[in-house]
Parts: sequence; structure tokens; C-alpha cells
Amino acid sequence: MDCIFCKIVQGEIPSAKVYEDDKVYAFNDISPAAPTHVLIIPKEHISSALEVDEKNSSLIGHIFTVANKIARDLGIDKTGFRIVNNCGEDGGQTVHHIHFHLLGGRSLQWPPG
Amino acid sequence: MDCIFCKIVQGEIPSAKVYEDDKVYAFNDISPAAPTHVLIIPKEHISSALEVDEKNSSLIGHIFTVANKIARDLGIDKTGFRIVNNCGEDGGQTVHHIHFHLLGGRSLQWPPG
Repeated sequence: MDCIFCKIVQGEIPSAKVYEDDKVYAFNDISPAAPTHVLIIPKEHISSALEVDEKNSSLIGHIFTVANKIARDLGIDKTGFRIVNNCGEDGGQTVHHIHFHLLGGRSLQWPPG
Repeated sequence: MDCIFCKIVQGEIPSAKVYEDDKVYAFNDISPAAPTHVLIIPKEHISSALEVDEKNSSLIGHIFTVANKIARDLGIDKTGFRIVNNCGEDGGQTVHHIHFHLLGGRSLQWPPG
């Protein structure tokens, strides 16, 4: 499996780790779009939101508890943040391992892209 | 509880329903930011992503299975889409009942707001 995010999880590609547990890994985006811009990914390879089903959806729920924890740890819980998942070409998905962008530290605008 | 989204769930305020089950309700955004713009909400009142914890996170996971189903039903699964959750002021959250924007039908840009 030639997946850059699987390699980051396995430590084969370096990353600036923000959080890790047995199911989830989080690291700073290398091209930040906001002062705080963390990517949260499942360690299990799920290619996109189209692969989320009743069998693996608890992992997505867990990712949101992790986003909550990271937002508090990084001090953007009181100011606010946006969580974004891109799926497919119109969504702008560039890595085909599901990931959630956690953005904060500035006022996010509307529309969201 | 004076929550506009709770009132939409209860049918006290009309909405253009897209999907409903025992836990989740989805309807078209009244100010669409893309050709497809659906709001997916839990029927249970959860005020924001900061209230997601291990007790209610399975509901968030379920919302992503619903997003997957709606994307397929509306024909944006092959072209792609973006799912956005806003939390707090910097996130641009305007209704304090957690909701997920499902946007598609055009190329979503980067940064996401």
C-alpha cells in the first residue's frame, strides 16, 4: 500500500505529531491554511468518506472526540475552529486516506472554499 | 429550549427534508453555498463539537454514514464533496446545535474559508 499517510502513521515519513492513541494519529499540516492546522487521521486505512459505514463509523466518532481534545490542548476551544473533510475531486481531496482538517487561530470565512 | 434546529426536527419550523431516521435529520441549507448544500444534524441537542465525547460520539459516526448515503442519493459521490463543521466564533458557527454541512456540485476551493 503506497499511502503517504499510512507511512506517516508507521513513522516511515516524518511528521510533527500533535496527538496519538491506538486508533488515531494527528500532526501539523505542512501547508497550514490557518495558525492552527492539524490533520487527524485513523491509523486504519480508510480511503475516503465514501468508505465510512456502520462497521467503521465509531472510529469517525472517536476522531471528533480527539478533535475536541486537541482544540482544548491548543487553546482554540474558546475562540472556535472548523473541521473539514474533503472527499473526491470536487472536495479537493489530495491524499486518499481519510483525514480531518482542524483549523483555528483566525476567523474562518464563508463559504468554506 | 429555544433552538431553531430542534424546532426543525420537531416540525415546528418547515424545512426541505433530504433524509431522516430515528437519530438524524437532514435538510437543504436555506442559503446554499454550493449547488448541493445539505445540513445534517442529530435529533438530540448537542450544542457543538466541544460537546462530543465518548458517550455521544457514535452519533457523529452515524452522521458520516448518512452523509455517505446522501452523497450517493444526490449523485455527488463520483464528483466529490466537502463536509464542514463549524464550532464557535472563529469557526463561524451561527446555530448552537451541532450540524454538518455537506457541499458538492462544484469544485470547492482551498483554503476552506
